Amino acid sequence: MSEFQNIGLIGRTESDSAVLSLKRLMAFLEREGYSVVLEKNTANDVAGHNARVSSKDKLGELCDLVIVVGGDGSLLAAARALAKFSVPLLGINRGRLGFLTDITPDEIEEKVGEVLSGKYMAESRFLLDMSVTRDGKPIGKGSSLNDVVIHPGEYIRMIEFDLFIDGQFVYTQRSDGLIVSTPTGSTAYALSGGGPIMHPKLDAIVVVPLNPHALSSRPIVVEGSSEFKVIIGEHNSTHSYVTCDGHDQVITEPGDVIRIHKKPHRLTLIHPIDHNFYETCRSKLNWQISS
Amino acid sequence: MSEFQNIGLIGRTESDSAVLSLKRLMAFLEREGYSVVLEKNTANDVAGHNARVSSKDKLGELCDLVIVVGGDGSLLAAARALAKFSVPLLGINRGRLGFLTDITPDEIEEKVGEVLSGKYMAESRFLLDMSVTRDGKPIGKGSSLNDVVIHPGEYIRMIEFDLFIDGQFVYTQRSDGLIVSTPTGSTAYALSGGGPIMHPKLDAIVVVPLNPHALSSRPIVVEGSSEFKVIIGEHNSTHSYVTCDGHDQVITEPGDVIRIHKKPHRLTLIHPIDHNFYETCRSKLNWQISS
Amino acid sequence: MSEFQNIGLIGRTESDSAVLSLKRLMAFLEREGYSVVLEKNTANDVAGHNARVSSKDKLGELCDLVIVVGGDGSLLAAARALAKFSVPLLGINRGRLGFLTDITPDEIEEKVGEVLSGKYMAESRFLLDMSVTRDGKPIGKGSSLNDVVIHPGEYIRMIEFDLFIDGQFVYTQRSDGLIVSTPTGSTAYALSGGGPIMHPKLDAIVVVPLNPHALSSRPIVVEGSSEFKVIIGEHNSTHSYVTCDGHDQVITEPGDVIRIHKKPHRLTLIHPIDHNFYETCRSKLNWQISS
Amino acid sequence: MSEFQNIGLIGRTESDSAVLSLKRLMAFLEREGYSVVLEKNTANDVAGHNARVSSKDKLGELCDLVIVVGGDGSLLAAARALAKFSVPLLGINRGRLGFLTDITPDEIEEKVGEVLSGKYMAESRFLLDMSVTRDGKPIGKGSSLNDVVIHPGEYIRMIEFDLFIDGQFVYTQRSDGLIVSTPTGSTAYALSGGGPIMHPKLDAIVVVPLNPHALSSRPIVVEGSSEFKVIIGEHNSTHSYVTCDGHDQVITEPGDVIRIHKKPHRLTLIHPIDHNFYETCRSKLNWQISS
Repeated sequence: MSEFQNIGLIGRTESDSAVLSLKRLMAFLEREGYSVVLEKNTANDVAGHNARVSSKDKLGELCDLVIVVGGDGSLLAAARALAKFSVPLLGINRGRLGFLTDITPDEIEEKVGEVLSGKYMAESRFLLDMSVTRDGKPIGKGSSLNDVVIHPGEYIRMIEFDLFIDGQFVYTQRSDGLIVSTPTGSTAYALSGGGPIMHPKLDAIVVVPLNPHALSSRPIVVEGSSEFKVIIGEHNSTHSYVTCDGHDQVITEPGDVIRIHKKPHRLTLIHPIDHNFYETCRSKLNWQISS
Repeated sequence: MSEFQNIGLIGRTESDSAVLSLKRLMAFLEREGYSVVLEKNTANDVAGHNARVSSKDKLGELCDLVIVVGGDGSLLAAARALAKFSVPLLGINRGRLGFLTDITPDEIEEKVGEVLSGKYMAESRFLLDMSVTRDGKPIGKGSSLNDVVIHPGEYIRMIEFDLFIDGQFVYTQRSDGLIVSTPTGSTAYALSGGGPIMHPKLDAIVVVPLNPHALSSRPIVVEGSSEFKVIIGEHNSTHSYVTCDGHDQVITEPGDVIRIHKKPHRLTLIHPIDHNFYETCRSKLNWQISS
Repeated sequence: MSEFQNIGLIGRTESDSAVLSLKRLMAFLEREGYSVVLEKNTANDVAGHNARVSSKDKLGELCDLVIVVGGDGSLLAAARALAKFSVPLLGINRGRLGFLTDITPDEIEEKVGEVLSGKYMAESRFLLDMSVTRDGKPIGKGSSLNDVVIHPGEYIRMIEFDLFIDGQFVYTQRSDGLIVSTPTGSTAYALSGGGPIMHPKLDAIVVVPLNPHALSSRPIVVEGSSEFKVIIGEHNSTHSYVTCDGHDQVITEPGDVIRIHKKPHRLTLIHPIDHNFYETCRSKLNWQISS
Repeated sequence: MSEFQNIGLIGRTESDSAVLSLKRLMAFLEREGYSVVLEKNTANDVAGHNARVSSKDKLGELCDLVIVVGGDGSLLAAARALAKFSVPLLGINRGRLGFLTDITPDEIEEKVGEVLSGKYMAESRFLLDMSVTRDGKPIGKGSSLNDVVIHPGEYIRMIEFDLFIDGQFVYTQRSDGLIVSTPTGSTAYALSGGGPIMHPKLDAIVVVPLNPHALSSRPIVVEGSSEFKVIIGEHNSTHSYVTCDGHDQVITEPGDVIRIHKKPHRLTLIHPIDHNFYETCRSKLNWQISS
């Protein structure tokens, strides 16, 4: 019998193709005798089913595995919501390989079947906790599987801030902002910003300056256990924003303190047994040779 | 007798040091018998003078030379306002060498004296005209000495747009935006964005993608006479902004068309006779050798 | 009647596929009544023909058009040899689009036919002349359509040199070398080195530092008429090499002076009428959108 | 009593200033009652001393601490030679702060005194072992504190090779070579090549492609325990070289296999108690703010 009996399903229901994949997946799971629990918002968009329905939070308690149908963005959202539970996640994409969602819709039966039968690769990924304090009082927080980004708000003005790592002053930076990224996030926005690729197993965090005024400012990779503190400069003409995985932003004021460190809970990400990080890189980043 | 008799003065009056330099400059000019015209806003902040006062526009008509006291930002603003007149500009910085303002406050009498006596270097710089149309109707415009920047507004979301140069399709880009920069702007924001330095005499425009999703996207340098057209993508979740020299932004909607080309009027920028572009680069960009 | 009657042919005869294309091209040209002149080395490898044979130099005098069959490298070599003549060049690749050779073997009859009937795009490209002097005496020279590269010889040691542009000192640089590139070369080695793409029509030259010690050292784009002088540093532990288009290297000693400037003769490059520079970029550099 | 009684000394004796520092250091150590052992080559250049003399190898056995007077390069050489012993190293520079040698000559008595009295910071750094095999037989090897670099030999031709990490195929790369760097090396050549800064405590290795043909090729950071295998491509027109810390090169042939992994022995690097990695970065990389 499979170690996974109760399977939660979350879908990106604005997408027609994701709804089709969801239905195909539900049919397969019910045919094979698994107990399916639909996330509430997802359930609203899947007409005519008779599966159990539950809130995202409950999903974390009730299920042995949660399958996310959508894309890397959907999986990021599920990961942030479910990180405090120990339930593992599996991702199904919408036809295009993702870094986090590596089963394509037409492989659903084959690949999900294999995973449920015990043939899979489990990977542990860490998340970041972010909090903002003003005059010592908390004013906002968030968590990220990919990255925390500090950036100017509405206006195109460089921002100025001080960065400390593990209590040590690193620099005062003027730039379009700063990305603090996990290995998971290193192939997302941080890569566009000039950061290195970090292997998912690496216990490290990278700090990537966004278009820094000082041309010698470079990405810095530090241990995963590092504590980051950013103090928003007193002379900024705009309000800086702090964003987790591109969502849930907090608007800061000069003098606000942003703290970032590894979340105590980790995410278990499930891949098909033949998953290979470098193959995903080759495919997504066009590493083929041509002359 | 000097070719420059009527000298306009514009200052960045929020700055105490700029006001001091202004007064020192006025005293020098009056002592030497020049006719001084103060820009209106500047005049408000310089108490106890008896110079003629005029609007910025009138300055362009009345003066043989306009001296800007402030920094590169103040000179950019003056250049945009006065570009349609043929009056040349000279810049005095606030103690730190600028790319456009290369006289420091303590050299005022010596260096300004030399310039007025005919020992100077005149440089011609071009500006950009930018206009936005929606459904064929104009909805905004601006002009830039440095750059036109297209960027997401408030939210940290990549934007998508199509770029055409001289009517030819270049690419559909997903990125944090696009910088279209003159040689003058190539040592400003475009440099932080990864663009090349362009010599001020070069008749060229560079297009710099900001943190592009496609890692193979690179700055492109084209002839100064090129016509740029950017069409904002239909599926952007945010409103893109268009900004000239970091000011005067226009908020766009999907489908809006942004056109950028060289302005017919050029700016004459006056430098001390010993000005050297590469020396400014070495100083501002820390090109010294160390090991 | 075609303006092109005498057609010279040069092929990369180490390549079997190029020989096949050559024969197909010869057959086509003879069938259509053109007079074919084979370059001497090329002729040796094409058995059983009865075309006129001539040295590369004579080809420049005898022909109205020279067609190069091979790849971008073959066209570069032909361009360097024939630049002093006014004969235009047309390139046929070996199955993969090049920046300089944009007719594929299976389009030979159609595209070459069109060009010969007068439907083509002619583009003027400039080359660089390079010379090295030691104690004032010439010790070597070369010419390039793409680039002149100064680099360490055998050992992996940074080299040190002084760069002057138009007589002005730019910097003392320590690096793996320097690329001085035309717009034509900007999509070749200079691009791997971090230089910008320059449109072929631009009259400009870019200087790209190779892995410079000073992180703030950046590509510099200057007018095409600029004169470059590089003085090899006195303290280098290795002999620097100077290479034109990756060929014909000169080995320098400390104190040697390298001069680079635009060649007086220009190359006329012929393209099919539907040629589009940006389309070639999109294809060669993978600029497609994916997410 | 100090835990360090027997102090080995190694100097870069081609340098006059290093010899002066050595003599000053010897005088200080003898005055304070320490037993000094001079490395053999170093002893040859320090006239008129009566210290014990020993080979570099013996130094590792005899001493409780080895002080290197020179620069980062001298310390790298000492580290490679002494890594198999457990003796810690302390570095004295020649007047300019190094990443590895952070005591300046005029601080010798104060700072070395502090270290010997027990006020110091000890840091553990790992090295890399490199070996080359041809047809399964070993043909060369080396070790590095900074980096292993694979690069073309004499000619400026891109090389082609396959990279495997932990047995997984990463990519076939065409480039000017590859840097495999420790955190220690990340602020040296790898930084010029576009790699990230890695904190010295991080247990990670970075792979930096040198001017890769594929523009989407990026630095990759992996766990310190990773095993690297590079297979030199069969079609290279030149012999690739493999270099450890810029020394000791091995010349390869097509098909040769290069293996790189962490050395079992680690280096203990001693710093003054107030050492701060980020302060060194700010100083060496010009991270100050200017506008």
